[in-house]
Amino acid sequence: MNIVIIGGVAAGAKAASKIKRLLPDSKVSIYTDDTHVSYSSCGLPYYIEGNFKDYTALLVRSVEEFNKLGIDVYLKSRVDKILIEHKQVLVKDENNAYLVPYDKLIIATGASPLIPNISGINCKNNVFTVRKIEDGINIREKMFNSNHATIIGSGYIGMELLEAFVKNGLKVTVIEKNERIMSMFDDEISDLIKNRIESENNGNFEFLTSEIVSEFIGEDSVHTVKTLSGKEIQTDMVVICTGVKPNVEIARDAGLEIGVTGAIKVNKLMQTSVPDIYACGDCCEERHLVSGRSVWIPLGSTANKEGRCAAINAAGGVEQFEGVLGSAVTRCLNTTMSMTGLTEREASNIGFNPVSVMLEKHDKVGYMPEVGEIVLKVVADKITGMLLGAQAIGSIGADKRINSLTSALVAHMTVDEYSRNDLTYSPPYSPTIDPLINAMLMLQSKIQN
Amino acid sequence: MNIVIIGGVAAGAKAASKIKRLLPDSKVSIYTDDTHVSYSSCGLPYYIEGNFKDYTALLVRSVEEFNKLGIDVYLKSRVDKILIEHKQVLVKDENNAYLVPYDKLIIATGASPLIPNISGINCKNNVFTVRKIEDGINIREKMFNSNHATIIGSGYIGMELLEAFVKNGLKVTVIEKNERIMSMFDDEISDLIKNRIESENNGNFEFLTSEIVSEFIGEDSVHTVKTLSGKEIQTDMVVICTGVKPNVEIARDAGLEIGVTGAIKVNKLMQTSVPDIYACGDCCEERHLVSGRSVWIPLGSTANKEGRCAAINAAGGVEQFEGVLGSAVTRCLNTTMSMTGLTEREASNIGFNPVSVMLEKHDKVGYMPEVGEIVLKVVADKITGMLLGAQAIGSIGADKRINSLTSALVAHMTVDEYSRNDLTYSPPYSPTIDPLINAMLMLQSKIQN
Repeated sequence: MNIVIIGGVAAGAKAASKIKRLLPDSKVSIYTDDTHVSYSSCGLPYYIEGNFKDYTALLVRSVEEFNKLGIDVYLKSRVDKILIEHKQVLVKDENNAYLVPYDKLIIATGASPLIPNISGINCKNNVFTVRKIEDGINIREKMFNSNHATIIGSGYIGMELLEAFVKNGLKVTVIEKNERIMSMFDDEISDLIKNRIESENNGNFEFLTSEIVSEFIGEDSVHTVKTLSGKEIQTDMVVICTGVKPNVEIARDAGLEIGVTGAIKVNKLMQTSVPDIYACGDCCEERHLVSGRSVWIPLGSTANKEGRCAAINAAGGVEQFEGVLGSAVTRCLNTTMSMTGLTEREASNIGFNPVSVMLEKHDKVGYMPEVGEIVLKVVADKITGMLLGAQAIGSIGADKRINSLTSALVAHMTVDEYSRNDLTYSPPYSPTIDPLINAMLMLQSKIQN
Repeated sequence: MNIVIIGGVAAGAKAASKIKRLLPDSKVSIYTDDTHVSYSSCGLPYYIEGNFKDYTALLVRSVEEFNKLGIDVYLKSRVDKILIEHKQVLVKDENNAYLVPYDKLIIATGASPLIPNISGINCKNNVFTVRKIEDGINIREKMFNSNHATIIGSGYIGMELLEAFVKNGLKVTVIEKNERIMSMFDDEISDLIKNRIESENNGNFEFLTSEIVSEFIGEDSVHTVKTLSGKEIQTDMVVICTGVKPNVEIARDAGLEIGVTGAIKVNKLMQTSVPDIYACGDCCEERHLVSGRSVWIPLGSTANKEGRCAAINAAGGVEQFEGVLGSAVTRCLNTTMSMTGLTEREASNIGFNPVSVMLEKHDKVGYMPEVGEIVLKVVADKITGMLLGAQAIGSIGADKRINSLTSALVAHMTVDEYSRNDLTYSPPYSPTIDPLINAMLMLQSKIQN
């Protein structure tokens, strides 16, 4: 069995090692246009911040370690075309183009930063995106020679970089085209996130919302960022965090089906529309476990699971990947932001009849030292009582509540069922009545009325 | 409607305020032999430790606050007898004995420390238990004049006091009659708990396991604790933490049914064998949500829920309390210990066919600062694949994993179902693959074989 894997960051790397474990005699090769393989892209902001000094900590498995496992890794080797009829891929490296045959092909091409259409964006040596190891190294290096950084986009990575830059003494401007930062949350939660983060602001950062960057001014380097409304921000460096798009070009060219989300369509076996070709990770779409709809939520944890599932099936086994909840967490300074399932806005758009409650509670018993606050919003369907999603922000333990609810969402629990939960209690860990239980009791009376 | 509540710590206090909210015109009275009402008994070890200086922080609601709500509170007023036929209770206070009529009666008499049969135990002014506000005040005062403390019993409270005393500079001896400390956990977890706590030992505490205290030597004060094996421990104070027993005397005397566990038997409405009499909190037993059996697991969080449920039903509504998982958490020094559901030993005794996995993993991605370790044990039934329970020890976040599994246990999820969970991931919060998912994958292969 000869298995070719395109891409080797999370899904591809996971798939390779899983297949080799299942089929030790198989030939497993990873082709990637990247300079590194098997690394934690999610860790880049923490490397930039200086949580650890050596970027190699981000490397999960080196090329040599893959080789030891009997897996061949070809860096800077771009797969340019899939020749489905011939079961071959066309690879181009710095010097050559050559054909590689496969029995099974796994596409794990990932995603690429979405670059907004800004005048003067090209050829600027102080404009960065955050995706690859080099990006992290370059941003960190530039950061040490900068007094001001501009972050375009205020999603997870934008917020993580804000922390990184602030902790390294920079002044920061975050520019967001939406009305609110962290706009994947419901509006009132986004507002609270902003308030919380702003409460730690000593004049060293600013959020410009409802602002669209129109121009980068400067020769080799940007020195001024101009917005449509006419604002001009003097800056030493710019990082674009406006999201990512799935890398589906070679899949589309080969005629593989692309889903409604724009990512590669796969079944629960992670199989594309061509049986011997699998896709996994950020390049393919998933089923949402609450809505049942196709979604594209690229996350490292999902990529790992999909890589494992694709590998088992490619190796001749049977494994199904059921889908995702879009569970996510991050922090910015002392604020944890976490969510799972549907927001109220999403639930409404999809056609649920959402009811929600929002409450602010201590994260432990009030008399304990270092007591923090958690704001929890829980969304349920008024007709069925089914839990639909939750958002939590606040102290470090906010994500604990979300991870309790992910289980509930996977099990399709109702508010009544969850209200019977027996959560752990002790003064340093939670209030006597956990905020989750408070939320359920409040939801019950909203559903009954 | 005239409602009498016996006992006012957690369940009784909760029941009183809930009833008054539901039936503002009702007469609600709390009778208790205690000197305080509505307090956090679970917080006593943290008060003793000095996490907060003023014991009144432990008081959830004062007598005056109850009065303002229209609830009468009678302190140092012991209910001595329930006259079921006459719907009256006999109350004795310092001066009088008198009869109080009721329409509905709620028994929330709680539990009392179990005092081992030790020669010389009586009339010693430096021997304490940890249950009431005065206990906390007295122990804290004595602690400041002591160099060495002896803790008898190594359950949750024993471990919490160990932390409290060590942090206040005392030398401590913990004496445990079982072979292991924290023996409610499975043996291998208890061993790891001991190893972890011992790793923080700078010669200031010792565990004596398989040791039974035989004698307290001293006149007014104990100065030496002697064990059956002949050990003699010089000490300045002794705290007995050998568990509690439910206060069921007046219920039993009145002819109310006592359950197999020795606590008051109630149905899901928290109704005793006499319809107008309810019981809630540490004095009554519960149904275990996994095993379906009657259990007695006295915990503050459960008491609150039961008090609420009893109140709703006593007030004429309908509410069911389904049961408990025995979820618990505590910490000792830097070790978090948490569990839910059945241990492997319990599962086996009950007649399940348990399989289990135990794994040690980072609590966040390995390259993050302050990465900690979590040991997780998950137990499932080999025949049905149903999850039965879990135990986690380690860094502060260990309880996060348990609270995700409590939802799973309430929903009767199988290992396969839980393995589809989509937990949040970000480097400061968890590894890419959460230990919970690792555990499920390992369990799957154990169940399949």
